[in-house]
Amino acid sequence: MNYRIEMDTMGEVQVPADKYWGAQTERSRNNFKIGPEGSMPQEIITAFAYLKKAAALANTELGVLPKEKCDLIGKVCDEILEGKLFDQFPLVIWQTGSGTQSNMNVNEVVANRGHVITGGKLTDEKKVLHPNDDVNKSQSSNDTFPTAMHLAAYKVAVEITIPGMMVLRETLAKKAADFMTIVKTGRTHFMDATPLTLGQEFSGYVQQIDNSVRAINNAIEMVRELALGGTAVGTGLNTPKGYDVLVAKKIAELTGLPFVTAPNKFEALAAHDAMVELSGALKRAAVSLFKIANDIRMLSSGPRCGIGEIIIPDNEPGSSIMPGKVNPTQPEALTMVCAQVMGNDMAVTMGGSMGQFELNVFKPLIAANVLQSARLIGEACVSFNEKCAVGLEPNRPNIQLHLQNSLMLVTALNTHIGYEKSAKIAKKAHKENKTLKEAAMELGYVSSEDFDTWVDPLKMVGTL
Amino acid sequence: MNYRIEMDTMGEVQVPADKYWGAQTERSRNNFKIGPEGSMPQEIITAFAYLKKAAALANTELGVLPKEKCDLIGKVCDEILEGKLFDQFPLVIWQTGSGTQSNMNVNEVVANRGHVITGGKLTDEKKVLHPNDDVNKSQSSNDTFPTAMHLAAYKVAVEITIPGMMVLRETLAKKAADFMTIVKTGRTHFMDATPLTLGQEFSGYVQQIDNSVRAINNAIEMVRELALGGTAVGTGLNTPKGYDVLVAKKIAELTGLPFVTAPNKFEALAAHDAMVELSGALKRAAVSLFKIANDIRMLSSGPRCGIGEIIIPDNEPGSSIMPGKVNPTQPEALTMVCAQVMGNDMAVTMGGSMGQFELNVFKPLIAANVLQSARLIGEACVSFNEKCAVGLEPNRPNIQLHLQNSLMLVTALNTHIGYEKSAKIAKKAHKENKTLKEAAMELGYVSSEDFDTWVDPLKMVGTL
Amino acid sequence: MNYRIEMDTMGEVQVPADKYWGAQTERSRNNFKIGPEGSMPQEIITAFAYLKKAAALANTELGVLPKEKCDLIGKVCDEILEGKLFDQFPLVIWQTGSGTQSNMNVNEVVANRGHVITGGKLTDEKKVLHPNDDVNKSQSSNDTFPTAMHLAAYKVAVEITIPGMMVLRETLAKKAADFMTIVKTGRTHFMDATPLTLGQEFSGYVQQIDNSVRAINNAIEMVRELALGGTAVGTGLNTPKGYDVLVAKKIAELTGLPFVTAPNKFEALAAHDAMVELSGALKRAAVSLFKIANDIRMLSSGPRCGIGEIIIPDNEPGSSIMPGKVNPTQPEALTMVCAQVMGNDMAVTMGGSMGQFELNVFKPLIAANVLQSARLIGEACVSFNEKCAVGLEPNRPNIQLHLQNSLMLVTALNTHIGYEKSAKIAKKAHKENKTLKEAAMELGYVSSEDFDTWVDPLKMVGTL
Amino acid sequence: MNYRIEMDTMGEVQVPADKYWGAQTERSRNNFKIGPEGSMPQEIITAFAYLKKAAALANTELGVLPKEKCDLIGKVCDEILEGKLFDQFPLVIWQTGSGTQSNMNVNEVVANRGHVITGGKLTDEKKVLHPNDDVNKSQSSNDTFPTAMHLAAYKVAVEITIPGMMVLRETLAKKAADFMTIVKTGRTHFMDATPLTLGQEFSGYVQQIDNSVRAINNAIEMVRELALGGTAVGTGLNTPKGYDVLVAKKIAELTGLPFVTAPNKFEALAAHDAMVELSGALKRAAVSLFKIANDIRMLSSGPRCGIGEIIIPDNEPGSSIMPGKVNPTQPEALTMVCAQVMGNDMAVTMGGSMGQFELNVFKPLIAANVLQSARLIGEACVSFNEKCAVGLEPNRPNIQLHLQNSLMLVTALNTHIGYEKSAKIAKKAHKENKTLKEAAMELGYVSSEDFDTWVDPLKMVGTL
Repeated sequence: MNYRIEMDTMGEVQVPADKYWGAQTERSRNNFKIGPEGSMPQEIITAFAYLKKAAALANTELGVLPKEKCDLIGKVCDEILEGKLFDQFPLVIWQTGSGTQSNMNVNEVVANRGHVITGGKLTDEKKVLHPNDDVNKSQSSNDTFPTAMHLAAYKVAVEITIPGMMVLRETLAKKAADFMTIVKTGRTHFMDATPLTLGQEFSGYVQQIDNSVRAINNAIEMVRELALGGTAVGTGLNTPKGYDVLVAKKIAELTGLPFVTAPNKFEALAAHDAMVELSGALKRAAVSLFKIANDIRMLSSGPRCGIGEIIIPDNEPGSSIMPGKVNPTQPEALTMVCAQVMGNDMAVTMGGSMGQFELNVFKPLIAANVLQSARLIGEACVSFNEKCAVGLEPNRPNIQLHLQNSLMLVTALNTHIGYEKSAKIAKKAHKENKTLKEAAMELGYVSSEDFDTWVDPLKMVGTL
Repeated sequence: MNYRIEMDTMGEVQVPADKYWGAQTERSRNNFKIGPEGSMPQEIITAFAYLKKAAALANTELGVLPKEKCDLIGKVCDEILEGKLFDQFPLVIWQTGSGTQSNMNVNEVVANRGHVITGGKLTDEKKVLHPNDDVNKSQSSNDTFPTAMHLAAYKVAVEITIPGMMVLRETLAKKAADFMTIVKTGRTHFMDATPLTLGQEFSGYVQQIDNSVRAINNAIEMVRELALGGTAVGTGLNTPKGYDVLVAKKIAELTGLPFVTAPNKFEALAAHDAMVELSGALKRAAVSLFKIANDIRMLSSGPRCGIGEIIIPDNEPGSSIMPGKVNPTQPEALTMVCAQVMGNDMAVTMGGSMGQFELNVFKPLIAANVLQSARLIGEACVSFNEKCAVGLEPNRPNIQLHLQNSLMLVTALNTHIGYEKSAKIAKKAHKENKTLKEAAMELGYVSSEDFDTWVDPLKMVGTL
Repeated sequence: MNYRIEMDTMGEVQVPADKYWGAQTERSRNNFKIGPEGSMPQEIITAFAYLKKAAALANTELGVLPKEKCDLIGKVCDEILEGKLFDQFPLVIWQTGSGTQSNMNVNEVVANRGHVITGGKLTDEKKVLHPNDDVNKSQSSNDTFPTAMHLAAYKVAVEITIPGMMVLRETLAKKAADFMTIVKTGRTHFMDATPLTLGQEFSGYVQQIDNSVRAINNAIEMVRELALGGTAVGTGLNTPKGYDVLVAKKIAELTGLPFVTAPNKFEALAAHDAMVELSGALKRAAVSLFKIANDIRMLSSGPRCGIGEIIIPDNEPGSSIMPGKVNPTQPEALTMVCAQVMGNDMAVTMGGSMGQFELNVFKPLIAANVLQSARLIGEACVSFNEKCAVGLEPNRPNIQLHLQNSLMLVTALNTHIGYEKSAKIAKKAHKENKTLKEAAMELGYVSSEDFDTWVDPLKMVGTL
Repeated sequence: MNYRIEMDTMGEVQVPADKYWGAQTERSRNNFKIGPEGSMPQEIITAFAYLKKAAALANTELGVLPKEKCDLIGKVCDEILEGKLFDQFPLVIWQTGSGTQSNMNVNEVVANRGHVITGGKLTDEKKVLHPNDDVNKSQSSNDTFPTAMHLAAYKVAVEITIPGMMVLRETLAKKAADFMTIVKTGRTHFMDATPLTLGQEFSGYVQQIDNSVRAINNAIEMVRELALGGTAVGTGLNTPKGYDVLVAKKIAELTGLPFVTAPNKFEALAAHDAMVELSGALKRAAVSLFKIANDIRMLSSGPRCGIGEIIIPDNEPGSSIMPGKVNPTQPEALTMVCAQVMGNDMAVTMGGSMGQFELNVFKPLIAANVLQSARLIGEACVSFNEKCAVGLEPNRPNIQLHLQNSLMLVTALNTHIGYEKSAKIAKKAHKENKTLKEAAMELGYVSSEDFDTWVDPLKMVGTL
């Protein structure tokens, strides 16, 4: 491979001749060979592109950066946003905990690519843009990385997580409506219980998703707040007056998302509680989805030896050895995603707790885990929706069979003959393998007519 | 010990003669010898007392319970609320996952104690109140336990957690104001960085607590919603019309807290996502407090070989072997509490994920962990506040010494001579163990006058 | 209340007149009002009693403590071990992270009680024993607390955890043998699969417990190692030569358990990785038990609308509203315990990670969580065993019904007619609601005779 | 893109014309668009290659597969092991929880590539090898996936995790020896304590790693056991006699690693407790490494306002805004890795708990997390070792300065004048900002000569 020599404050470094990155990126690439190359999430790189462009605009508007430099920086950022330069960001998550070298990676690529755009060569000693003094102007890694992290997390949450959940929510709501009058046996403790309708059961899932989305929306309210303008320790050293508010406004304009400057930059650099909170909300969503997917998995179990009250689509042969087997693979993928989100939340909690003095140095860990969780939930919901929920149907014969058999219909008698007599009926039926009515008649606690009037599953499910 | 015979639908049970509980409580007591007796949290018992009274009032208002029975139930509930009957609740957390026997424990105690109040004897075959048909009227364990859980959690959150956090918040805000002009060295990566003021540092803590309280307040919005009225599976079987709304209103009146009926009872029985969300918010608060306590611990380290920039009160001899040693014991207790809250959150997450069909049967686990977390945070904040934060003072000589020494004051030169020359000054000073000014002079990058004007820590901390 | 005045190096303190504890205990009691009083686990107090007696014996044998003092210390320790003084230990978990005040609580109680035993009064200025110079001789909180923690954890593990698991293991092994020829349908993905026997299914549970016990035994190998002799920072300052080995030997003699001195005291004070490892092994056991309990819960589901292949004992009425309902309450209690153990493991992980320099100051947290986990697992296994596993029986009619219906018996044809033709048979049978044989005949892939020979569930379960 | 038509038991599927995979892989690729394509770990694919070759060998040896087919299968497996076919495995982690489609992906690629090797075309209707009947012979996804998982995890543990830890262990042991006589102040509670040597401090780290490696070695003893031979539900249906033992032997031969067949196949399919145990051991290692990295980070803090007792290598410019700043980036990367491993452990715990009846369907999740943890720890240790530990040096002037200042040297007086007088000396020195000796003289508790004899840091560190 061909190399060129790049310099930073520590001296010379050999960099691949055809890459835009510079000395600091190359140092980090060599110093941190942990996990696959380029593992720093692309969403972070994209967010940095918005950020660098916004900072340049704000700097120029505040008179500390010439307009030509601003334009040039913006041009390179646009290239990144168009996806043209993704091979220029080789760094990994497992680097310095401030993400400094990923910030410098962007600074170097923007400076060098900008220089080349103007007709310069990568080997020119003097370049049009300086990575620190121009591209990083009025910035520190300590405020840019958390800003990129918030920007990326907010974007994924509103563009992938919530829409993915909502599309599933709408399908479940439609199913709830469609199934609203299908009376079935309830199950508590996984044991037969009083009846409800399949639609009522599904309405609970809808409520779970609604509440989870609400929690995510609450959490991202804090993620909207950006650290940018705090620079090294939160004081805003080396920034022009009004910069923090202005740069957040620029980011909001460029992204079309409602970002604002954080009210306290010391908190914004030293703590990433907003990300911890978002991770917690995603975990809460995972808890909801785990229950929903599990229920659907078990309700569709069988085909002949399980619960079998719903039918889900057959998407693939289920077994490499058992011919004709079909499995609830979408619920399985979704529950695995949920377990991952729970694990990620613990990593984020650990990282989030570890801020010290003016900085939390678990930033890349936090960013990577929250972004993965947010994306996985959104994409898994879409997959689960399309390949499972949309095609889900009731298995009416099984539902009817179970409903007829359930001894817990006896509960309807409570208000007429009391809990104790009702219990005797149910126990007798169970023990002697009879119907409830047979047992009730034999015990003489209720007339045949009353039994038929009172023990009517449809009357036991409330107002629909 | 003397016993009397009690009956339930399964037959006879020997119960201690002097206890108000009945057959089902006794069965559970014998069936679950796991952990210390009576571990079911008292807050849950108290919450049940509110609930049973409210249910009786609603039942009577809706015409399904005679007024005398309602009054009698209310009288016993009041005794429980006055703390008179706590030895009547011997059951443990580790029982049925619906908490059924704890619901029955309350039903039995209320029924039997009510009977005794009216002059009856525990051994009377016929009693004034029936535990199921009267005390539990229009109820199921499946809706009462989650209601008690929400009621208890909301109460602890607003009466202990948030007030505890706010008292600490106020102290930290006062310290932030008091220390606002004390310039000190910043630290990022635990390494010397540009300066800020001690007050700015503390202002970040205040923001952390504010944001955490906001998160808890968001979460309890969902905890306000009560499952009561859903009965066995969420359909409200065996409840009079309008009961769910009315009973929530009664609970709100009795507690003075803004409880409402849950919009979807299927969700409210089968999922405890609201508790998971609250646990997540408490964990988020734990993350904040962990950072704050850790900072204060390390800032006060020394007395002679540490950071030593603040002084915290000496509360107890710190060592059984090292004479005169004083330790940051309050921060230690607080960080241990935070670690417990994080662990509890995982237990709650696990339990919360496990709802199946119409019921989640990890209710006592969820309740116990959330209540412990909520209480511990509140009480630990009060302790930390009183015994540590209130008495915290700056160690001005050390702060001054560190500030003067810090090489990162060089950052002020960036905007005048650029990042690279500034780096050379800092590196020279570090390598040759000189002051920044000496190095700057020797390198000739800046005049003595300019140096003094530009490198002024007070100017580097921004607007205060 | 009556008080007496006690002194420590910080000055005077009012102590309840009738209590043996002294100034430092009282300070801690007042400084840490977090959670219920006396929450420091009793196992820790008991362990301290062994430890203080052993230290006195070693000190005397090595010539640094008069024999009379040793005898007196031993006498009080014996009283503690007999359970006579438990009301003398009021301190909480949430105190200093070194547990110093709990060490001092023991030192003070032993010194004061010893003085009283010899006829002295608590108000005597001069006492026979000094809490630091005599009772704590050759010790520091920093080595005594981890020693007590290891001692207590080892004891609970071998006396409660493992025996509890083994009693359940034996029952399950017996069931596995009893049920070894009961052929039933298998279930993978919760879907019908090829057959196995109920005994085979249970044999997997036995293996799980065996492996979990093995993991716990591996972990406690490290817990056997005691920090005692390291004193303040691990150097053994202020201990006589040979003390560390001797005192471990004394503890081994007193407890009858194979304790040894830790090979590296610096690690033993600063890291509690052995406790983290034990917690991890307990969590691994919890994972095993969770699966077992869950399976049994679901296998017993019904009675008429579930899986219903086993019958578990009815221990209590299952519902306060549904008459005659019986629930799998023991599996529920066990799974809740498992979830708690998983949560506790996270608290221990967090605490274990936080050692700094010469000390980990999350000791009480770590101790309390590991001890709770170890005890809960043992006791929950005993409860689950007695009240559920022992009485568990197959539900033969249901087992037979499911077995006959299962389409996955088709797998036996794979080796005769290939996977694809077998799949066609299964799919046809499923779609047209026929038996496998009917479908096979209609498709003409196999003769009636061959079908009966090949598709024989009993031949499909391997060698029993 | 060009496509060809492939068939499976569900019908036709369009597959990219140039890919070796078949219908089932393509279905899974389309059904699970969750996260980045090809996320199923390469280690799993590699493990499958060993497994398929071993199975073919065993099948042939046992007479159920023609030798030519065996050879052909082996040839393709060798190509996979040489890394030639990695673009043929596009499936993701988030698929069916049994990993069935990844098993089928391998089966299809081996069958199709084998066919092409013999001169056939991908579009030939009849092929030399059948993915199910030949490549998957005597196998099920349910036993192959856990086998591949164990094989991969064992390999990574012994080839990456443990060697990575051991290389760091050796460096730390060398440093411990080199620094064995450098006396320094100890720190407990992050507060000044009695002295020890820097080598002693480091010896604790060595012990931590030794114990962690021991725990990992204990855990992989269970991972050595392979499920292969259990087929669909553990009974070994459709396998020739002796197959399970033989195939494990073949795998052992091919890999050179000591694999054996699992004693109970029901456990091996339905529970992945061995992986949970390994994850727990990795988490325990993470706890150890977290402490070590944290200590080194804090010991190197400064350069002028921190602890500063060691010097670590400067690897990169530390700040994009603070010129000349150097940060402890390797410790930061390592602690982030540790936090990830802790989070992964929770995901594995959750997944491991969820086995039901004859199968655990969280296999890909478990595999991916354990493999990531195992690799990250190994690689992060190597990085930390090379770029930080190897070059670590004591900062003797600071060490000396702190040692002289420490008031805790007073502890040496305990055995001469008692704890209380010693405390008075320390407190006086602290309060009046004097040296210990000055305070001791003024209080008259000890002669100047005795003081110098007794208070000698070198004597306080024990035998070196």
